[in-house]
This record gives sequence, C-alpha cells and structure tokens, in this order.
Amino acid sequence: MYDTVADLGERALIARITARLSMPTWVLVGPGDDAAVVAPDRGALQVLTTDAVVDGVHFDQRFVPPDAIGHRALAVNLSDLAAMGAQPRGALLSLVLPESLPVAALDAITDGLLSLAGTHRVALLGGNITRTPGPLTLDVTAIGSVRPRRVLTRAGARPGDEVYVTGIVGEAAVALQMLRDGLTPAPALRDRYLRPQPRVRAGLLLGRNRAATSCLDLSDGLADGLRQVAEASGVGFTIDAEALPVTDEVRAWYGTRGENTVDATLAAGDDYELLFTVRPSRKGRLRAVRGQLGDLPITRIGVVTRARELRVREAGLLRELPLGFEHFRS
Amino acid sequence: MYDTVADLGERALIARITARLSMPTWVLVGPGDDAAVVAPDRGALQVLTTDAVVDGVHFDQRFVPPDAIGHRALAVNLSDLAAMGAQPRGALLSLVLPESLPVAALDAITDGLLSLAGTHRVALLGGNITRTPGPLTLDVTAIGSVRPRRVLTRAGARPGDEVYVTGIVGEAAVALQMLRDGLTPAPALRDRYLRPQPRVRAGLLLGRNRAATSCLDLSDGLADGLRQVAEASGVGFTIDAEALPVTDEVRAWYGTRGENTVDATLAAGDDYELLFTVRPSRKGRLRAVRGQLGDLPITRIGVVTRARELRVREAGLLRELPLGFEHFRS
Repeated sequence: MYDTVADLGERALIARITARLSMPTWVLVGPGDDAAVVAPDRGALQVLTTDAVVDGVHFDQRFVPPDAIGHRALAVNLSDLAAMGAQPRGALLSLVLPESLPVAALDAITDGLLSLAGTHRVALLGGNITRTPGPLTLDVTAIGSVRPRRVLTRAGARPGDEVYVTGIVGEAAVALQMLRDGLTPAPALRDRYLRPQPRVRAGLLLGRNRAATSCLDLSDGLADGLRQVAEASGVGFTIDAEALPVTDEVRAWYGTRGENTVDATLAAGDDYELLFTVRPSRKGRLRAVRGQLGDLPITRIGVVTRARELRVREAGLLRELPLGFEHFRS
Repeated sequence: MYDTVADLGERALIARITARLSMPTWVLVGPGDDAAVVAPDRGALQVLTTDAVVDGVHFDQRFVPPDAIGHRALAVNLSDLAAMGAQPRGALLSLVLPESLPVAALDAITDGLLSLAGTHRVALLGGNITRTPGPLTLDVTAIGSVRPRRVLTRAGARPGDEVYVTGIVGEAAVALQMLRDGLTPAPALRDRYLRPQPRVRAGLLLGRNRAATSCLDLSDGLADGLRQVAEASGVGFTIDAEALPVTDEVRAWYGTRGENTVDATLAAGDDYELLFTVRPSRKGRLRAVRGQLGDLPITRIGVVTRARELRVREAGLLRELPLGFEHFRS
C-alpha cells in the first residue's frame, strides 16, 4: 500500500488520474503527451480563465474535505466561464502537492473535481503534478466557447439598467463562519460553501437570449462585484437592501451576533452567483431566461446610476456600500 | 514606497502587470474580466499545456534571479507547445506569492516572462494572483495552434526511424551544478540553465515539413525522453554515445569528477531541446528543415528499434540506458 503521494511517485499519480478519464471525440490528443490538442468549437470564440486555490488561504483542510477541495477548484473556474456566457469544454489541472499528502486524499480531490466535470461535460485535457515544501495548491485552467454576439462582459452596464442576482446570497459566508467556529451547518447550507454550483446554465441562457448588458460572478461578495462592474462600465449602483435574496437563517445568524445583515451580506464572499444588469426595454428577454432556467431564483436588487457611486438604500436611507474583500489584505 | 507584494495588494499588483501589456487584435477580451475571450486561429487545432514551477523544487531563488524565474516559467510551457509543432499564441499566469516577496522581485519576474513572450509574440491573456504561506509558485498555461496534419506527438516513432536532437545537451545540468556549488559559469553556459530557449521555430518547421514521426521536449533528460517516446510508440532505442552533441566543457566537468559523461548527459535535465524521430525515406524533409532553421544544430544520435529496449552503444559495447529523473523521487 502506498500511503503518501511521495511514496507513489509522479508517474504513478498521473496514471492513477488519467486511468479514470474518458475523452470526447473533439479531443485529438489528451493527457500524456507534451500538450493537449483539441478541435475548436466551429464558429465560436474561445474563452479561457485560470484560478488557483491554496490550503490555508482559500480553504482549510481541517474542515474542507478533499472532495470539496477538488470540486471548488474547478467550480470557481466554471463560474468565471459562466459569467462570460460561455459553454465550458475542458480543463487543465496543476497539482502542487506536499509530499505527506495521503494518496487517499488525492483520490478524493480527483473524485470531487471529476464529479463536477462530469456534471458539466468538461473534459480534463491535461495538467501536471509537482511536489512543494508548502501548502497544497491546485491551479485549474478552464476553457469554453461562446458565439461572437453572446459574450457577457463587465463593461456593458448603462444608467437605468436594472441589477439582478441569481440564487441566494450570503449563505456560503455563514456556512464558512460556522465551520470555522466548529459548528455543524445543515448539509444544504454547508454545501453552499463546500460545493458551490457554478451557474453555467444561467450564464449560457443570459448570453443566448442577449438578456444582460453586463455580468460577473460573485467570488468576493456583492459589494466587490458591484464595484468591479461600476469601474468597468463607468457607472454607479443603488442597491435596495430589502430586495437582497437572503434567508431567515442568515438573518438570524447575524441578528444573534448584533451584526447588520445587509452589510454582512454585501461583503460576504464565496457565493459564486451571477450578478448581471438588464436594460428595462429587454425585460422580455429576461422572462425568456427565467422560463428556460427553471427553479433558480433571479432577483432584482437595484438599479444602475449615472452617478459613479455605490450606494445601498435601507429603511429609506441611502448610504455608501461597505467595502468588499481583497485577497492580499487579510 | 511599497516594499512587499502584501503592502501593495492584489488589485494594484494586477494593475501593475496589465499596464504593461498590449493586446493583439484577435484578443477580444483581455485581462480584467472574468475570463479572456479570443478569436480562434481559423482552420487550426488548439494546443494547450500547463506547467508549474515551485521555489525550492524547480528553481532556487538563491541563484536564480527573478527575471530568470519568469523566463523559465513561460519557457517550459512554450517548449511543450514546440514539441507538438504548434505556434504559440497566448498564456495565462497564476502567481502564488509569499507575502514577503519584494515588489521589485515581482517586477523582475514579470520582466523575464514578458520579454520571452515578446520574442515569441505570445499574448498574456489573463491570470490570477494569490498569496501563500509557502514558496513562490508560478503556474503558466500556454495555448497555441497547429494545422491538423502537422501535429507532432510521442506516438509515431517506428523501427528503423533515425533519432535526432536539436542543439547541445547536458549544458543546463552542468550550469545548475556549478550554481549550486557556488561557482560562476560563463554567461552562455549559465543561461542554458537560467534562460532556456524553447525550440519554437524548430518544432514549427518539423511539423510544417512533416519531417518527424515523433517529437517531445527534453525537460527531464534524454534518457527520460527516450523512455517516454518508447512507451508511447511501442518501440525501443539504440543511442550512439559518440554521437551525442556534448561540448568539451561538459566533458571536462564530468571528467574531473570521475563521472561517465555519457551517463551523466543522458540523465541530465533542463535542456528543453527537441528529441524527434525521422523516417529514413523522409530525410529530404529534414534537409528542408535544416535549410530553413539556420544555426541551430540538429544531430543524429541513434535509431529506433523493434526490440522495446533502451540501449546505448559506447566503445562498441551495448548497455542499458541509465534511469532518468522523476520529480517526486528526489
């Protein structure tokens, strides 16, 4: 029996992962050569993104199980593709492993990643494995495709547009706080942090229906997302505090701590919902998206303003948005 | 003045890099959105590869200056594209940074990477920056394109093919040993390790002229490369020790240490030359490549055998190849 990845060795680790893969026909050369070769999606543009997750920075192995580490590493990248309106196609995986990592943990990381990849029909095209004297680090590059006139960017929001968000916000941050405090969140709440579901179909439908003027995914919180769209589009936002899609559970969590639920929710990260803007004259297109999307809630939370300020209206009072989260300022 | 990357913060670090970039027209959305969007190279297949470099594993900051770290991180990936016969187009960069890293070091890393990118007209399409409690880690994903019938893989070598290598082998390993020992290699020798030149043009010409039956790049040494082609193609090799393109400097280095130059050179990593096979009936195509390539030597070093063994012929005697290098077994 091999206990750690160092016992097993690089080639055997690679073979252990590639043995589990099946390649779609558009993959002409898969893992095992110097590089992957794929046939392009004809008539489409290529979309590419990369994001790394580091133990102790983006997750904590004490309460994030290995399968969730693999799931999250891919999910954050698929979420970026979704925010562009892209169909995900493939991924490359860089595994940077401490020598003491149990082989069983690597297997579970692979499980989590491949399970999510299967859900979205994403092919693992290649990658590399290296050891590190530091923390477990996974870097995923995801590629996708999008038709030319269906690309969603952060730069198209215009004054008068309405602001929407998919799903429910703030739950992932509460789940993370509970896990950090040694509490046991209910499974559904816990998975909002551990196994976020990238809004691939919502992004695709927003692009296909040409319903959104701008879109991004909420990795670092609503306040941060709004600020980024504001900067890219040269606009401002007024958010309606009462409209935020927040559960009673989240309100109760902040209430018992004497924290303002609205401020906490605006600053809360890890939701991986889509934030997007819609021109009022195109609300019919948004209705079409809702019709095709099914259960996922889509909630109007505010408006785009000409004034380049970020404000929240709560109990009739306008005030500035709280600051968001920045990875290097901890 | 900001001294460390933690002082400066994530957004300012990203802005500091993106301010230096210029985008070709085929990049429709560059860094700064959720993902990059690029127009495909029409009629071409897409080639993708990713490779991470870790301080203390793939380089040592004590003798690898920051610009060389950036250069090497991109070079190893461009070398993988070259081995497929691909034209490089773009790269994504994941920077995993210790908080104490000086901003000046990050600037120099960027210098080295962008300088090599400029040489090969590679666009930096996007990336991400995160902190780590561990060592400096760079993960680069490179993308390129290749025409359908020009793809080079490891799987096409056939018995009777002749084996070739570009450039000179073994110098990088000697330079690394000298640097580790606190010696000062001559600048040209030193740069064989610090700033390897990916054989992009050689790979392109081998593909375009359809001269090679197989190809890979020598990241982990000749012995390792031969073993990988042997496994992928289901063949063996007999290498002619006297034919190896080794300099007198390298022979002297091993000679004074009482080491066998041939064994040491076969095991030596970090060369990033191309190893490829040519069918004897297609030597005319190889002549065309030589004519178009200019100064870079191309040396015949052996033959492909039906017997699936890896052997070296030295002073009339046949013996087994020494083992190569494996990252997880140090």
